Amino acid sequence: MKPSIPKGTRDFTPSEVNFRDFVKGKIKSNFELFGFEPIETPSFEKLEVIADKHVNDGEQLIFKILSNGEKLSKADLSSLQKQNYSEFANSISEKALRYDLTVPFSRYVVQHQNEITFPFKRYQIQTVWRADRPQYGRFQEFLQCDADIIGSNSLWQEIELCMLYDLIINDLALKGVCLRINNRKILYGFAKLLGFENRFNDFTIILDKLDKINIDGVTKELKKQNFSKDKIQIIKEFILLEGTNKFKLEKIRKAFKDSKISLDGIDEQNFIIKNLEESGGFESIDLKFDLSLARGLTYYTGTIFELTLPNFPEIGSIGGGGRYDNLTENFGKKNLSGVGISVGFERVLMVLQKFKLFPKDVNNSVQVLIANFGSKTALICNSILKELRAKGVKSEFYPDDSKLKKQLSYANSKKIEYVVLLGDVELQNKEFVLKNMYDGSQANFKISQLESVILSKLKKFN
Amino acid sequence: MKPSIPKGTRDFTPSEVNFRDFVKGKIKSNFELFGFEPIETPSFEKLEVIADKHVNDGEQLIFKILSNGEKLSKADLSSLQKQNYSEFANSISEKALRYDLTVPFSRYVVQHQNEITFPFKRYQIQTVWRADRPQYGRFQEFLQCDADIIGSNSLWQEIELCMLYDLIINDLALKGVCLRINNRKILYGFAKLLGFENRFNDFTIILDKLDKINIDGVTKELKKQNFSKDKIQIIKEFILLEGTNKFKLEKIRKAFKDSKISLDGIDEQNFIIKNLEESGGFESIDLKFDLSLARGLTYYTGTIFELTLPNFPEIGSIGGGGRYDNLTENFGKKNLSGVGISVGFERVLMVLQKFKLFPKDVNNSVQVLIANFGSKTALICNSILKELRAKGVKSEFYPDDSKLKKQLSYANSKKIEYVVLLGDVELQNKEFVLKNMYDGSQANFKISQLESVILSKLKKFN
Repeated sequence: MKPSIPKGTRDFTPSEVNFRDFVKGKIKSNFELFGFEPIETPSFEKLEVIADKHVNDGEQLIFKILSNGEKLSKADLSSLQKQNYSEFANSISEKALRYDLTVPFSRYVVQHQNEITFPFKRYQIQTVWRADRPQYGRFQEFLQCDADIIGSNSLWQEIELCMLYDLIINDLALKGVCLRINNRKILYGFAKLLGFENRFNDFTIILDKLDKINIDGVTKELKKQNFSKDKIQIIKEFILLEGTNKFKLEKIRKAFKDSKISLDGIDEQNFIIKNLEESGGFESIDLKFDLSLARGLTYYTGTIFELTLPNFPEIGSIGGGGRYDNLTENFGKKNLSGVGISVGFERVLMVLQKFKLFPKDVNNSVQVLIANFGSKTALICNSILKELRAKGVKSEFYPDDSKLKKQLSYANSKKIEYVVLLGDVELQNKEFVLKNMYDGSQANFKISQLESVILSKLKKFN
Repeated sequence: MKPSIPKGTRDFTPSEVNFRDFVKGKIKSNFELFGFEPIETPSFEKLEVIADKHVNDGEQLIFKILSNGEKLSKADLSSLQKQNYSEFANSISEKALRYDLTVPFSRYVVQHQNEITFPFKRYQIQTVWRADRPQYGRFQEFLQCDADIIGSNSLWQEIELCMLYDLIINDLALKGVCLRINNRKILYGFAKLLGFENRFNDFTIILDKLDKINIDGVTKELKKQNFSKDKIQIIKEFILLEGTNKFKLEKIRKAFKDSKISLDGIDEQNFIIKNLEESGGFESIDLKFDLSLARGLTYYTGTIFELTLPNFPEIGSIGGGGRYDNLTENFGKKNLSGVGISVGFERVLMVLQKFKLFPKDVNNSVQVLIANFGSKTALICNSILKELRAKGVKSEFYPDDSKLKKQLSYANSKKIEYVVLLGDVELQNKEFVLKNMYDGSQANFKISQLESVILSKLKKFN
């Protein structure tokens, strides 16, 4: 059998794991800096939880887990015959891998509501799975990083989340990131003013495509879906609006003044943008009110966010989120408003790689290799190893007395900085040779000084 | 719908995640101290990889993933009719969740053999899934922590792994841990001497039960399986052998002197035990050569390890491992000897909880809450927040101007040490009140001194 892995999945080598852990660590520490606490939920949930109606993209992207043994006798063969594969699958499956972190989070909140003090600020960094067609930047298994606050409708939360995005981006040294912000209330009022509030979802789904198919594509789609010519003209005018955030909001306020819900949305946007500016603005990101931002997911009810890189549009958004008022309703808990953001971990990694922003100090290598010169010196090498480790030095003893060349090439491949050479001759002289693999230099020292010599050489102790 | 999770799975609250991360961090840092590097493999593998013959416990413990859409039309209905559920499942499933980390590791090694420099020292800390009946200490989803070296048959590796176990246990402050060690070669020679080498597997499976069913149970089982009375007597004599490691090894060497393979195993044990003793012994664990240790898994060919807590036998083993010579053979790569250990993460957690060894300094709480007194002071509170965070202080602003009692109770529930009170009166006096939630004390300070006052109070900066 020639070994391979399923399409859309990945093996991670040591340097890849270290890179991923580095980025994960940055996101995690900023989540915690802002007062979010971690939770973890099971990889699979009951099928009825995962197949939540909120999930737009639909059931076909869910990985279902096959029931075991006799439970398979319940297979609904009539569905199979009718080629109703979804019904058939549901007859032999009771659980499914999580598709996102939002549904498990709302299930968690309702299930644990009596232990939770609200507002509940949680973050969750876990894997999700989607039976999606694998393509550039899209995998069947990937990491999601979400932070949400549930149980308060204060707009200071939206402000917090913008500042959080800013510090994460700043910490990762990413440049040219734009935080687009809008409010579903403004959009809903807009649709109402144009008389198609009953087609609000179609409208937002088309708007969302602006980045990908540009304005001509959007116009074509709107036509195809029978939006009238004059209304398309109005839509174009507003979604292409340029200028400062203040200018755009003022302009929209005047035009939408007959829609109470739009005005509410505009007031919210104003509050957020004004307070962010007065708190001193951002370190790294550029905040842009953008009426064309719609966010496909139907559960958003207020502010919506999206993080993009205008100079790297192929990558799509690298984060997004928003306010939702009814997320836990499906699980029987009403009137719990929440707001949250997600960091597109895999895409952020791709951006860091593209712009070579992988910092050099993520070197997590072994620091010292003790070469193996056979049985006479093995025991003393082992004692040295013990001492080095007691001082926190990452070190290892080459297991076999292979040719030195092979041992040094092993050190090279693992990017080990120092090799200790202690053969029979050195032992007689109570000495050892310390070889620096980075610059090739080497020098003799007394064995009794080994620990202090190495500690003083290693950067982390300088 | 009343929300719940599948049996055998768990939600983890913030304090549970912090506890798990703390223990995971200890294991990880010791793995790295010993020169192991991390890899990660996909959660699911192709079915033919997971259903590897090495896995004893069998197919029924594997979670298979249902294929999507039209692939279900391939359902093998004749198997279903014959109640051959396994065949039926295989006709509509192409992949399965990983059952352990050993099979993915061997698949990884063979697949990436041209990029790997051997000996390859890898660790892997990832979730595994088993469709096992949930019971005390046994879950359907749990974390595994493995460290293996593959590509060298040096016994110094076994010595390294014993020292690694010792430092992990020491770091976790666990007392009374016993590292049982044996060698499958000695056992195989023993079986051969008794004339039942063709029943070696039955023999080891029964031996393995000694901890659970004690010597009478083992005797009964051996009888039931038609081992003869006099041979059972010999088996009993040797597996109950007491005394120092040296004494037991000497006694067995004499008795087994006609078995070349046993003598090889005894030499290996001697080498390991002698060198460990001469390197200064252990910090925390007690090393015990134990002929009754067998380890069920058939892939072990040399040294075998098991970590137990004699004063907490209900918990079973908290770690185990051994030497295997043919693990990658199934994937087409022969003659690659490896040796590895596993730390029983979930059981270690249970032990730490039982003996209340959860260290106090795992406190990962938010450090400062800024109370909310409404719109007049909100903006200045937000600026303060920004400054504190710039200094690395985990802090948050209460989102609503609720009653102070509610805000303080929120701080209490999140174990936040300090609350900053800055209302209209304080603002007029350019002051703030700092309340210590741990001892109830409070004092007034100038706003201009806020940052330095808080930094000097917080323990982490003392």
